[in-house]
Amino acid sequence: MKQPDVIVREVGLRDGLQLVKTFVPTETKLAWARAVAAAGVPEIEITNFVPPKVIAQFADAADVARGALSIPGPKIVALAPNRKGAENMLLAGVRNVNFVLSVSEEHNLANVRKTVDQSFAEFENVVALRAERPEWKNVRIQGCLATSFGCTIRGKVDPNDVLRCVDRYLALGADEILLADTVGYAAPSEISNLFHHTVAIAAGKPVYAHFHDTRGLGLANVYAALEAGVRAFDASTGGLGGCPFAPGASGNIVMEDLVFLLEKEGLKTGVDLDKYRAARSIAETALPDEKFYGTILKAGLPKGFTPPTLAEAAE
Amino acid sequence: MKQPDVIVREVGLRDGLQLVKTFVPTETKLAWARAVAAAGVPEIEITNFVPPKVIAQFADAADVARGALSIPGPKIVALAPNRKGAENMLLAGVRNVNFVLSVSEEHNLANVRKTVDQSFAEFENVVALRAERPEWKNVRIQGCLATSFGCTIRGKVDPNDVLRCVDRYLALGADEILLADTVGYAAPSEISNLFHHTVAIAAGKPVYAHFHDTRGLGLANVYAALEAGVRAFDASTGGLGGCPFAPGASGNIVMEDLVFLLEKEGLKTGVDLDKYRAARSIAETALPDEKFYGTILKAGLPKGFTPPTLAEAAE
Repeated sequence: MKQPDVIVREVGLRDGLQLVKTFVPTETKLAWARAVAAAGVPEIEITNFVPPKVIAQFADAADVARGALSIPGPKIVALAPNRKGAENMLLAGVRNVNFVLSVSEEHNLANVRKTVDQSFAEFENVVALRAERPEWKNVRIQGCLATSFGCTIRGKVDPNDVLRCVDRYLALGADEILLADTVGYAAPSEISNLFHHTVAIAAGKPVYAHFHDTRGLGLANVYAALEAGVRAFDASTGGLGGCPFAPGASGNIVMEDLVFLLEKEGLKTGVDLDKYRAARSIAETALPDEKFYGTILKAGLPKGFTPPTLAEAAE
Repeated sequence: MKQPDVIVREVGLRDGLQLVKTFVPTETKLAWARAVAAAGVPEIEITNFVPPKVIAQFADAADVARGALSIPGPKIVALAPNRKGAENMLLAGVRNVNFVLSVSEEHNLANVRKTVDQSFAEFENVVALRAERPEWKNVRIQGCLATSFGCTIRGKVDPNDVLRCVDRYLALGADEILLADTVGYAAPSEISNLFHHTVAIAAGKPVYAHFHDTRGLGLANVYAALEAGVRAFDASTGGLGGCPFAPGASGNIVMEDLVFLLEKEGLKTGVDLDKYRAARSIAETALPDEKFYGTILKAGLPKGFTPPTLAEAAE
């Protein structure tokens, strides 16, 4: 497979597991990651280097990361809320750091107990790690902006505040930007508008989109982001990843359906949906109490439609 | 309420019930329709004037239609597969006829046992009814095109075939056009392209969109259709209306989520989502074995967001 036209990144093992109380054994996490990789997903956000006392699910972060790095194929990425987490991640061998802060001051305080300014200072500390060891020099750092389209505490978030945060991240050394609709508030025109400006400001640096389907608009928002030039999307196996503020509501957009949308739009993702069933099966077996979403694996591909990825593989 | 910016049409009582084996009592159907109307939905496709031996659910078509015509508010529309059905509909007092044929020859033969040419001849017979009685002179007729974006029997459908059918309908006297993604095959770019041309050809006559969410792209397709200038959408209570060719897959797009998308895009629908809960509750109680979909009534509106329809009502 040549380069995909669009990056789909699996976040089931990070965002998907964030609220899951049942501890998923390390080996099961790795089996899931291997199945995701075997289906052709080019990038996996594998874990969260957060202290175990904050989220017990990620107590095995270093082991999961080390195991995942030996899987052939995908780029392995992990999340860190601070310098300490990022350092542990680098020591485990991961070379792609996602750092996250919330544009909404209220949400950032609730989430990481820092003001936005304090979080940017922490981001500077993370960036400074690149100077500490020669093998860390080329570490890629993604600046992620949670609550970019609204916040359950504050309500509306000003798009200009988001763009100011994008500027700050880039000025401080971020290699990539991610805008997240953390709570599923965004509608397509808002996506279109904010990503259009962000892509322009990023000036060639990758811009990722992270959407939740809490209010049913996840894939409509993907289409709007595509129109704005975005070519990298987070999604999770079966949409795993509920929101604590919306009981019974769905979480991340569903990887399987995202892949169908992109391939139907003529974009190669590199993902074989049929092979992806194995990943879904592992996750469903490991988490019998969680709800898994998605339509395409139930309904099947349209008659006469060959996804570009499979067409290329058949050549 | 002034004119809505966009028409949402409830089709739960027609498309939603089409495959439901349990006969829903006439009075329950009317209670459902009254609740839909009370929530502000401006148009209801109320039943199908098809022979009871074809679909027993619609044996009470004339009674349902007559009952619905006394509900204050919504425009009442019904479907007819042929001249006989249309005549019965007009005799019951309905003045808005939806006639349907499939662009796919194979699907049309399977569905109504006619070639596409024969169906257009039947459409001429329906149009001719307007001349038969003075009170039928101003009957509005919508030409609906099933399988406009693909067919489970034929596979791909040529967009040029769709546009030729649009031309034929208009030449024969259709007042409105509807393109249906009957089996949930369409992706947003295809929607955008075909509706763009259809809106141009229709030259000011209303163009409706009818989408199924079988493969998860229903609301993404709505957004693409909005961009192409479409301002009228079918949807059903809780997405009722499965597809016989995709067991377990969802059916129509969900009215509640459609309304949220449109209002979040700044378009008044006239619908009060909170009041719509009563309609959903009636349908769920009447059909305990059917699956109802939708996210917005579970997750609630975003904090700080007032739908344009409610903002206007509060003025």
